[in-house]
Amino acid sequence: MISKNQLKLINSLAQKKYRRKHNLFLVQGEKNVLELLQSSFELHQLFATEDFYQRHSQALKHQHCVITTSEFLQKAGTLQSNDSVLALVKSPDATAPTISGSELTLVLDGVSDPGNLGTIIRLADWYGIKQVIASEDCADCFNPKVISASMGSFARVHIHYTGLAEFLSLQSMPVYGAFLEGENLHCAELSPQGFIVLGSESHGIRPEVARYVNRKITIPNFGQAESLNVAMAGAIILDNFKR
Amino acid sequence: MISKNQLKLINSLAQKKYRRKHNLFLVQGEKNVLELLQSSFELHQLFATEDFYQRHSQALKHQHCVITTSEFLQKAGTLQSNDSVLALVKSPDATAPTISGSELTLVLDGVSDPGNLGTIIRLADWYGIKQVIASEDCADCFNPKVISASMGSFARVHIHYTGLAEFLSLQSMPVYGAFLEGENLHCAELSPQGFIVLGSESHGIRPEVARYVNRKITIPNFGQAESLNVAMAGAIILDNFKR
Repeated sequence: MISKNQLKLINSLAQKKYRRKHNLFLVQGEKNVLELLQSSFELHQLFATEDFYQRHSQALKHQHCVITTSEFLQKAGTLQSNDSVLALVKSPDATAPTISGSELTLVLDGVSDPGNLGTIIRLADWYGIKQVIASEDCADCFNPKVISASMGSFARVHIHYTGLAEFLSLQSMPVYGAFLEGENLHCAELSPQGFIVLGSESHGIRPEVARYVNRKITIPNFGQAESLNVAMAGAIILDNFKR
Repeated sequence: MISKNQLKLINSLAQKKYRRKHNLFLVQGEKNVLELLQSSFELHQLFATEDFYQRHSQALKHQHCVITTSEFLQKAGTLQSNDSVLALVKSPDATAPTISGSELTLVLDGVSDPGNLGTIIRLADWYGIKQVIASEDCADCFNPKVISASMGSFARVHIHYTGLAEFLSLQSMPVYGAFLEGENLHCAELSPQGFIVLGSESHGIRPEVARYVNRKITIPNFGQAESLNVAMAGAIILDNFKR
């Protein structure tokens, strides 16, 4: 039996202030919950339909799972299509990023759209990027829309929020960033380690962050569109680094 | 003065059946309307604030423009942030695609999400692709969300809806398509002309279309994400073709 208070708690987690207050976030939908169960995140509570529970009894055998109805899950969750499982997860403590000298790390400056952030997390996971450094005004990585757009990759890619200028000022590896007047991405020498800065769609990379970019690159344009969406630009840049 | 009937007409254009009935579609927001004015689309009616009209009087000098308020535009349009200009545009007659032997053409199989379609149109425009062939169940290219996500590129990239299997059966140029078991995109020989088929996120390329794909390619995966969003996959593939 699920109380009104539980429903109220779940609903409240669509908002950042309540995620902070309760130190919890929501994971919805089969794909995301199954990835969650294989991750190091700590589960607080799991609600699932009998059908989901039966189909995934092996993955769920050490979990306490509240059996409920599709109707409840649709009412409780933020996603229209979520009607089989929903998890409340403990927000992990913020940790400092550990930058190794042999990896690429994405740095996001003001990427405030949750869909874009989730898509970038999925992309980072595709290209084997384990950490993303985000400015404080990026979308919250525990926003349900971010989790949803990440398609399970939220469970593998760590997002660290920090002041980018200070962070980058302490780094010695190359810092790449996409600018209109940079070197052609198809010809530039791209290092297998370092930082790739992506700016917000409306403002690009801010000057205080741009001063730490020492390798300016440009995605060559063959048509007339003036710009690319930040997630698409990230996809193209990462693919070029990994060739 | 704008009548209730005009407001009703504008509101109705969020739905495909009314776009068909009235043979009109909506273009909203500064960037999209300014691109529209430079295109071959035929304007039916233009509503703008006095401020917009003054700032763009040169571009608007041969247009009949109804001056209205931000409040009206917000009420009439489908976009929250649209408060300066809105155009009703005549839907062009469907034409058959003209395939030249020297170009790349995108082919979309079941891309039903309007945001993805709009993003792909923008991407096509970035890479100089002039025509997109779409299956009948793709999102409608005159859906306001498609127009909005295309960031003005809707005015330059032509979308043709047709049965893909029949269309592809008549072509002699190479037909590329992304599959899990294809040739590594980073190593494959990519022709400067032909067709690139992108499938829907949930179902991929359908078997009846896949049988016409004679060059299967795969975006190499360096991490653990299982798939990429169709617009991102398109971005990566097009960038590889244009290197």
